[in-house]
Formats: sequence, structure tokens, C-alpha cells
Amino acid sequence: AERPRHQAMAKNTNLRWRLPLVCLLWEVAMIVLFGVFVRFGSEADAHWEEERREMNLTSDIENDFYFRYPSFQDVHVMIFVGFGFLMMFLKRYGFGAVGFNFLLAAFGIQWALLMQGWFHSFKNGKILIGVENLINADFCVGSVCIAFGAILGKTSPIQLLVMTLFQVTLFSVNEYILLNLLHVKDAGGSMTIHTFGAYFGLTVTRVLYRPNLEQSKDKQGSVYHSDLFAMIGTLYLWMYWPSFNSAISEHGDAQHRSAINTYCSLAACVLTTMAFSSMLQKKGKLDMVHIQNATLAGGVAVGTSAEMMLTPYGSLIVGSISGIVSTVGYVYFTPFLESRLHIQDTCGIHNLHAMPGLIGGIVGAITAAAATEDVYGKEGFIKAFDFTGVYRTRTPSVQGGFQAAGIVVSLLMAFVGGAIVGGILKLPVWGDAAAENCFEDAVYWEV
Amino acid sequence: AERPRHQAMAKNTNLRWRLPLVCLLWEVAMIVLFGVFVRFGSEADAHWEEERREMNLTSDIENDFYFRYPSFQDVHVMIFVGFGFLMMFLKRYGFGAVGFNFLLAAFGIQWALLMQGWFHSFKNGKILIGVENLINADFCVGSVCIAFGAILGKTSPIQLLVMTLFQVTLFSVNEYILLNLLHVKDAGGSMTIHTFGAYFGLTVTRVLYRPNLEQSKDKQGSVYHSDLFAMIGTLYLWMYWPSFNSAISEHGDAQHRSAINTYCSLAACVLTTMAFSSMLQKKGKLDMVHIQNATLAGGVAVGTSAEMMLTPYGSLIVGSISGIVSTVGYVYFTPFLESRLHIQDTCGIHNLHAMPGLIGGIVGAITAAAATEDVYGKEGFIKAFDFTGVYRTRTPSVQGGFQAAGIVVSLLMAFVGGAIVGGILKLPVWGDAAAENCFEDAVYWEV
Amino acid sequence: AERPRHQAMAKNTNLRWRLPLVCLLWEVAMIVLFGVFVRFGSEADAHWEEERREMNLTSDIENDFYFRYPSFQDVHVMIFVGFGFLMMFLKRYGFGAVGFNFLLAAFGIQWALLMQGWFHSFKNGKILIGVENLINADFCVGSVCIAFGAILGKTSPIQLLVMTLFQVTLFSVNEYILLNLLHVKDAGGSMTIHTFGAYFGLTVTRVLYRPNLEQSKDKQGSVYHSDLFAMIGTLYLWMYWPSFNSAISEHGDAQHRSAINTYCSLAACVLTTMAFSSMLQKKGKLDMVHIQNATLAGGVAVGTSAEMMLTPYGSLIVGSISGIVSTVGYVYFTPFLESRLHIQDTCGIHNLHAMPGLIGGIVGAITAAAATEDVYGKEGFIKAFDFTGVYRTRTPSVQGGFQAAGIVVSLLMAFVGGAIVGGILKLPVWGDAAAENCFEDAVYWEV
Repeated sequence: AERPRHQAMAKNTNLRWRLPLVCLLWEVAMIVLFGVFVRFGSEADAHWEEERREMNLTSDIENDFYFRYPSFQDVHVMIFVGFGFLMMFLKRYGFGAVGFNFLLAAFGIQWALLMQGWFHSFKNGKILIGVENLINADFCVGSVCIAFGAILGKTSPIQLLVMTLFQVTLFSVNEYILLNLLHVKDAGGSMTIHTFGAYFGLTVTRVLYRPNLEQSKDKQGSVYHSDLFAMIGTLYLWMYWPSFNSAISEHGDAQHRSAINTYCSLAACVLTTMAFSSMLQKKGKLDMVHIQNATLAGGVAVGTSAEMMLTPYGSLIVGSISGIVSTVGYVYFTPFLESRLHIQDTCGIHNLHAMPGLIGGIVGAITAAAATEDVYGKEGFIKAFDFTGVYRTRTPSVQGGFQAAGIVVSLLMAFVGGAIVGGILKLPVWGDAAAENCFEDAVYWEV
Repeated sequence: AERPRHQAMAKNTNLRWRLPLVCLLWEVAMIVLFGVFVRFGSEADAHWEEERREMNLTSDIENDFYFRYPSFQDVHVMIFVGFGFLMMFLKRYGFGAVGFNFLLAAFGIQWALLMQGWFHSFKNGKILIGVENLINADFCVGSVCIAFGAILGKTSPIQLLVMTLFQVTLFSVNEYILLNLLHVKDAGGSMTIHTFGAYFGLTVTRVLYRPNLEQSKDKQGSVYHSDLFAMIGTLYLWMYWPSFNSAISEHGDAQHRSAINTYCSLAACVLTTMAFSSMLQKKGKLDMVHIQNATLAGGVAVGTSAEMMLTPYGSLIVGSISGIVSTVGYVYFTPFLESRLHIQDTCGIHNLHAMPGLIGGIVGAITAAAATEDVYGKEGFIKAFDFTGVYRTRTPSVQGGFQAAGIVVSLLMAFVGGAIVGGILKLPVWGDAAAENCFEDAVYWEV
Repeated sequence: AERPRHQAMAKNTNLRWRLPLVCLLWEVAMIVLFGVFVRFGSEADAHWEEERREMNLTSDIENDFYFRYPSFQDVHVMIFVGFGFLMMFLKRYGFGAVGFNFLLAAFGIQWALLMQGWFHSFKNGKILIGVENLINADFCVGSVCIAFGAILGKTSPIQLLVMTLFQVTLFSVNEYILLNLLHVKDAGGSMTIHTFGAYFGLTVTRVLYRPNLEQSKDKQGSVYHSDLFAMIGTLYLWMYWPSFNSAISEHGDAQHRSAINTYCSLAACVLTTMAFSSMLQKKGKLDMVHIQNATLAGGVAVGTSAEMMLTPYGSLIVGSISGIVSTVGYVYFTPFLESRLHIQDTCGIHNLHAMPGLIGGIVGAITAAAATEDVYGKEGFIKAFDFTGVYRTRTPSVQGGFQAAGIVVSLLMAFVGGAIVGGILKLPVWGDAAAENCFEDAVYWEV
């Protein structure tokens, strides 16, 4: 009863100087780097009035702000409320779920604005930002939130900040390789966000394997109210996913189409999730874990192809399959990964992001390879795949091949990057808790 | 203590094969029907680029997506979070409230896209969909969510899916009669959504009358936290209702006006609800049931007239009255309906949707009948009521008469349809629970 | 144990006739005043079709509805869910927090439409309203929600309605002085909303000082679940603040820029808040009070300058500082204010709104004074500060001086107005509870 707990008790989780130091140093670094590099893009700059006239735009409504801001806000809600509340299912880790997600995302978007800015918005020595950069920063951070799901409850906030720093960097490199070097389409991020983020997180949690985690098994479950809070996260992710997949698509039909495809895929996914959740339990009862997670797989699985001519029924098929795969994953794969591969995946991101992300990449490759001028129209075909300039002569089947290569690159980046970052996080200086104190807010929060 | 409960215990609520079968069969049917019928509308199709030029549209911002997508997302939140959380007030039925609402709505929107598509978007053998179809599908499902409120806690998910199938069908027929045959205006759906949905649900719950429901009376109340969760639903419904009533109004002034009228009506409704909630309780204390529900009656009651020149003060009057009627309904009518008419209305939809829906239909008829060219302007008058083609010569007073006829048709469809569907749901094969197990998540969920 | 409690028990908190009387009388007054004064603005009026053609607008998308409605809805969520849930942190006052906020805001927006309308939208004897008026009404009510935070749990709903009546009036006068007489810029309301609202509320709570408040000290804290509900409020305020600060900025670049500046400031604010929250606690643990509140200070502190060329790194600096000031305020200032100055500030609005509001006013004055034609462009410079008409010759440094004067005027209005309104609220007729019954829903709600 006196808890004479060996080396575990020796762990120092007092972050009084370490956490402030990391937060403040990094924020100062952000200020300096923003000061040197970041400026308003032309549509957010006070010179816009003059530029607008030069560009012969007749109205302020042509400002990209009005095309993308509503979608941006939906994505923003997904990152902060969606992920934050979805991870609130743990009975004693609600503060950590929503609070650490808040912290890492707030840091991550700043660093992402810089990293992605250097790769994509760099002009005359300055990064010029607008609403599209804000969306992309949220996207990048989304991949960190996904990885966070694997290590939820087992890491200190400093570890999360360190992981964010590295993962945002790797994300940006991977994204650059895919979008610019391979000229791959991935508007909703099946590959760049989900596949990369999930396998990165799974690799990290493998490296951080805790053999004695059953010491905190009692805290790893949910209670009635924590499940209801988690449903807030689920529903906002589910409802706004059409905005997510369409947020950075081309203006006009592409944005419109992405939203419709995603809407259809998600609707179908709910039905197959419910079906398999009931079927795989002896008494036919539904499991909230499946409803909270697998219903979202349909959004992940059309992330690459949503802006293509996937068609509504194609979306229903993809959504249906991904709901089944994800639910089966929760029942069979998660226990297997833990017992055999020593991958402790708190939120089951393998089922919600990794497998559906792979499906998404594959569906994207197939849809691209199957594209024809007949289906897209002559102009639409060129516009949809940006077959201009040096890519003028690329054919759909070649594009499909590059799309498939994008999956492989994302996986490699995730495994190698995750292994290195996992190693760094294993250093005994970051203030993580002993196995017996995992999944417990009292370690880092005044409760 | 051994609960030797007679026939009640005999009820088989194990859905292990029935629920998966229904979900999977229906999803396959959706895929087949979508494959045969559903295609992207021109504004979501990759040919849009060419079409846009032909139509002389100078900018992508003219795509209907940018006129309606923000409203669509608000409506989407109302259906899934609004209704889902509003029904979470029951202390032991939170999973069922939000989870079954999720299930029936996800199925319903697919079936609604087809049903409404055949009636309104059918062209050359194909249903061509765009963002407006998504909104209309959500609207249609809204009427099912309303009916769900009456039978909440007393039905199995299979019954809900069966009800959704039939109700979406009947909704679409009724909507077609009103909008196309009677040429009635009902942008916010006072008649098509609320009146129809509520009386349909009340009829169903009458047919499914459970004489022994007092056996689960202890579970039919709320607890402190479930009331707070329900307020999430209330507030999102309240805040986004201006988007609901304006979502499919004509571009420009009509959408703008609908939002303002609804905003005014809802604001007034809150004050009269609070006033009567306090007045009708001996100690003057406020009742959360009223605040959660009657504050929304103002949105329902301007559903038909919001896009007309109801004027802000007209909206205040309508909102004030509907808040009073709804609150009085909760105090006096609901107990009366249950004890005398054997209508067990779990959420009190008679007070929130049925009576305010009727008010909405009547206000709409009066507002239409009172319309003049002076108030609307010559062009605005024609545009507001679509007095073109064969309706070129229709006068406001005739329009008012047709509006009133729309109420009657909606009521008839609701009563007849509800009676038939209620009869179907009474078949002893759908896995509903015994009276003593109503309002209890443990029946269908792993808790 | 028998609670023989003196004069305290004598307090009559039965509002059965008083609350209904106030609500109904005031709603009738609203209806009459709306009937006399309020009409649709041209963009919401059915004559718009004709007017549009006269104005040579080629598309309905030019209607202000499409520029501002998405921002309006975000602001709307901040007022009703943001403030309502943020104040839900008290363990026994959740109904009061969200319910009374709902009541006062619903009344306040109606009265604000009139008050602000008379000052800013009055034409030929009528107030012409559109979406911008709805946003401004929400803004005005925001300042009342802030003041509510200081007196939360200690006042009756009637007192709140009386305060709302007066505060909305004073807000509108102050706003008129700043915007029209001083020609000051304050799009996000650092001065008009936050500085005014907070110091008004602090003055009111000072006048209403309760020496025996420690009698309800046990109820003044939070519990685990109430803190999670409060995080819903925090996150929605945080996510939508970019919409708040940009909602009424000029179309185009100004709206775009406001959103970016606010996004940056808020992101930085989270990191410094976390840093100081950990640093100021002996064991380095994070305090939910800080995370719930101080993370928002960055939004307040760029309220005036967000639409100016503050630049992203400028925003990071302002956000960083305001997070530190606000967190330090919670730890040191709030106890000081209570013990020495007898200012009982339930939510700590001094830390979240008052000090960051002052910072915001000062940063705005400096940013305006530092403006140059070089940075803004010739046209952008004139447009940003509206240096037209009689203000044609105003220089940036003079503008900076007027901005600073705006802070002083707002403070004076708050102190004088708060003292008078506090005195009115002290009259023993409004039904407030005894000190021992503060922070307790059971007084005004059926629990």
C-alpha cells in the first residue's frame, strides 16, 4: 500500500523549468524567423487595392479569402476541437487530450507556416502568406495530431513539442517531394497527412514501447461521460471533413466536387461501421470506440481522390470498404499490434488513419490512372491534374504510377523519420511519466 | 430481486445479425442506385470550366458552391450535433441519442439524395447533384430527426432505419406536391419539415403506445450533466437556424432577408420562453426543458415566411408568440397528450415542432396573401413567389390559399403515413426493448 | 447545523412575477420600437433586384451577405457557445452560466440593433439593417458577456437584464464617440468591447461587493467535468477569433489581413501562457484556469490593430506578451484585487479582457502612428484609416493620438457608467441571492 515503486518513482515529471524554457525559446525563435521571413501575401497586403486593379479583378469578392475562409474555419475546428475532443475518451486524461493537443497545434502551425512557406511561398527572400497557407499549416499539424493519438497518455508535453518540431519538418519535406517532385495530387492528404502521420506515430510509439503499461490499464478505458465528450470530436470531424478535403482544391468545380465525394463516402462509412461493430460482438451490441473512430475512415479514404471524378457511387464504395476495414482493425489488428509487434496505439490510429490512408492513396492512384478526356473534358482534364509545363505530356497511367510512388515515399519517410524521432524522444530528459502514471492528468495538471 | 419478468424479458434485443443485414443490404442498394442514377451536376463536374465560359460567367466565385456551402455546413451541424446533442438530455441514453441519430441521418441523406433527386434534379435519366441537393437531403433527414424525438428511447436502431426509409420517401412525395403541384413557398420547411415530421412522429408514437412505460420512468429524466450536453444541441440549433431558413432561398436579397428574419424571431422567442417558464412554476424557477426546446420555436415558426417581407418586427411578434405557445405546451399539453390521447412524446416535439410548424404555415400563408408589388417591387414580387410561366397570373390571395392547402396536405400525409409506418414498426421482428428497458443505453450498446 | 441565517435568509429570490414582467414588457417594447423604426437594408429588401442593376453590380455574390455571413456565424457562436460554455467552469452554476448568458444576449442583440441603428444606420426616419448590423449587435452584446463574467454567480437574471439595458446603451454612445467623433479604428473592439466591457463589469462588481462571499467559497471552484465543458467555450473563442476581428473590416485585403494577424497572435499566446502557467506553480503543473482564459488574450490584444499592417511577426510579439500578462494576472492580480480593492472578479475578466484590451488599444495607437504610405501604398493608406473628407489631412501621428484618446474615453465611460449601473443593481428589488447561495443553480433553476 505504500507504493515503494523502484525506478519508476524516480522519474522526474516536474516540468517547472523545462517546459517554460522550451515554450519561450521556441516562441522567440518563431518571432525572429517570422521577422526575417514572413510577410503578407498580395491579397492580404494593403497594396491589394492597386494590385486588384492591375489584375483587372472587378470585385473584392475575387480575393482568395472569400473562396477559402469558410473552409479554413472548418478545418481549424477539426484540428482543435475535432482531434482535441476525440482523444478525450480516456477517463482521466481529458485535460491532457485537449490541452496538449492545443499546445502542440499552436506551436505546430507557426513552424509549419515557415517550413511550408520556404518550400511553396518563397519569393524574393520572403514567405508571403494568405489564407491558403493557414489551411496548409493546419493540415500539417493534423498529421502531428494523428501521431499524438498513438502516444496519447504516455508522453510529456515537452516530448510532444519536440515531436512536433521534427514531424512538421519531415512532413514539409515529404509534401515537397510528393507535390513538387513527383507532381502528385493529394488535396485531402490521404498520403501526406494520414499515411505519413499515422505510420510516423506508430513507429514512434514502437520505439517508446512500455513493457509495463498494464500497470495503468485501469485508466486506459473510458467512462460514460468521457465517451460523450469524444463524440463531440467525432461529429465535428465527420461533418467538416468535406471542407477538409476541398479546402485547397482549385476554385470552382474541384472544390464543389471534393465536398460531394467526401460527403458521400462518409455517409456510407457510418452504415458499414455500425454493421460490423454489431456483427463482431457476441451480443450484437454497438461499441462506442468504433462509432467514434471508424465512421471517419471514409473521409480519410477519399482524401486523394475526392477532387477527381471519383463519382458519388465510387465514393459510396470507398466509404463502405473503409468503414469495414477500420472496424475490423479495432477488433482484430489493434490487439495483435500490441501483443505481437509491441506497438501500443492508444487511439487506434492504425485503424482510423494508417489503413484508410493507404486505401486513399491507392484509390487516388487508380482514379488518376483511369482518367480520360472524355470524363473530364479537354480543359478539365488538364486542369484537374495540372498537366501543364513540363508535365504537358504526362499520361493518366503514368500519373497513376507517380501517385503510387507517393505512397511508398510517404511510408519510407514515416518509418525512417519515426525511428529517429522516437530515439530522440527516448532520451531520459523530457519528463515523461512512469508506466503506472500514464493516462493520468494529475501528473502534469493541477486537478 | 431476481426480476422474474414475464413476457417483457422474452423480447429479443440481440441485433447481431439483423442490424448488420439491414445496414449492409441498404448500403449495397444505395451503391447500385447511385451507380445507375447519380452524377455530378454541372457546377461540380470537371466540364464546368467550359460550361462557365459558355454561360459567360466571369469568375469561379459564381459557382453555387460559394453561395451555399457555408449555409450547408451550418445545416449539417444542426442535423448531427444539434439534434444529436439536444436529445442527449436523458440520463442513460446519451449513446443512443447521438449514435442512432448519426446512423439514421447517414442513411437518410443517401436515400434523400435519390428520392428528391428523382423529383427535382432528374435530367436525361440521371440525377445531377450539387451543394443544393446536399442541403435538401439534410433538410429531409431533419424531419426524420424530429420524428425520432417522439420515439426516443423506445425503439431499436432497426426500427429507426425502417422509419427513415419510409419517412424520407413520404417526405419527398409531400414536398413534391407542395413545391411543384401547389407551387407553395416553404424555404425553411415549416410545413414540409416541421409540421410533416412532427405529426408523422406523433402518429407513429401513438401507434407504438406502451401502456407500461412507467416501468422505466426513473430513466426518463435528466441529470445535471446530461442537461448541459443537451444545451450544446440547443445552442447550435439556435445559432445556425438563420442559415437553415436561408440555405436554399434565392441568391441575394432573399437569403439575406431570411437570415435576418430568423435571427429576430429567435431572439424574441428566448425572452418569452424564459418569462413563461418562470411564470408557470410555483417558485418562479426556470425549467431547463423549456430553455432547451421552446427557445427554438421561433426558428420553426418563421420557416415559411422568413424569405418573404415579413419584416423584423413581424419576426419579433411571431417569435414571441411561438415561445409562449411552446412553453405552455410543455407544461400543459404534453401531460394531456400522454394521459388522454396515449401519445408518449419523449422530447416534446409537439411543442417544439408541431405547433410552431403550424404557426409557421399559417404565418406564411398570411404573409403571402398580404404581399403587394409596392412592398416587394415589381420584379421582387415576381421573383419572391416565382409568379412566372403558368403561375404568371396567380395573385397573392390565391397564393395564400395554396399555402394554407399545403398545411392540410402535410398534415394528411403525416397522419396517414405515420399510421401505416407505425403499424409496420409494430411487427415483433425489429428488436425493440421491453418497457422496463426503455431509455437505457445498455440494451444496444456496450457500456 | 440548522442554518439560522439572519438577514441573508430573508432575501426573496422567487422571481415568479418579476422576471416574466421584465421579459414581457421589454419584448413588447422591442416590438413597438422595431415596428416604428427597423426595416430591411437595401441588400436584404425585395427591391434589391432593381437596385443591383442600378448600381451596375453584375452578380448576386456582390451582396454583402456573402462577404460577411460566414464571419457573422462564427461571431454568433463565440457569443452564445463561447462565452456561455467558458463560464461553465463553476461546479454548480452550469445552467446559470449558459442560460443567463443566452437570456441577456438574446435581449441585448435586439436593443443593440436599435441603439447602434440610431447612431449608424438611420436614414429617413428608419433603421435599415443588414448582416453587418447583426455582427455589430453581437459585438455590443459581447461587451455585456464580458461584464457578466465579473459578476457571474452573484446576480439574479433580472439584474443581468437591467445591466444589459444600460450597458448596451452606454456601449453605443461610447462607440459613437470613438468611431464617429474621434474617427478611431477599432474593428476587433480592443477598446469599445474589451476595455469598456471589462472595466464596466469590474466597477459594477466593486459596487456590488459582498463581504461574506467566502460563505459560498466551496462552490466557487470547478470540478473535472465542468472544466472540460469550459474548454468547449475556450476553443470556440480561440478558433473563431480571427473571424471576430475581421468580421466588419473592409472587404478584401483588410478582412484577409485581420484574420491572419489574429491567427498568429493567438498561436503565440498559447505558448507563453503554457510557459508561465507551469513556471508560476511550484511543481510545474499546468492550471486549467490559465489555459481556459489566458490563451485568448492574444485575440483581445490585436483587436484594434489586426486590420492594420501589424505584420505576422508583430502579431506574434503582441500575442506572446499578452499571454504572459494575462497568466501573471491570474496568479497575482486577481487575489490582490479581491483582498485589497474589494473587486470580486469571478472569471478573472481583468486578466482576459481588461489588461489585454488596454494592450490592444495601445498597440493600435502605436501601429496607426507608425503607418506610412510606403508600407500601405498610397491608396491603401487612405483606405485603411479612412483619411477622406474632413479627415483628409489627418496624419498617422495625429491618428495615433486620437486612438490613445479612445482608450481614455472608454475607461471613463466604463468607470462612470459602471458606478451608476452598479448603484442601480444594488437596489434590493432585483431578487439576488444571499452570499451563502451564490454560485448555485438551485436558486433560480429547477435542478
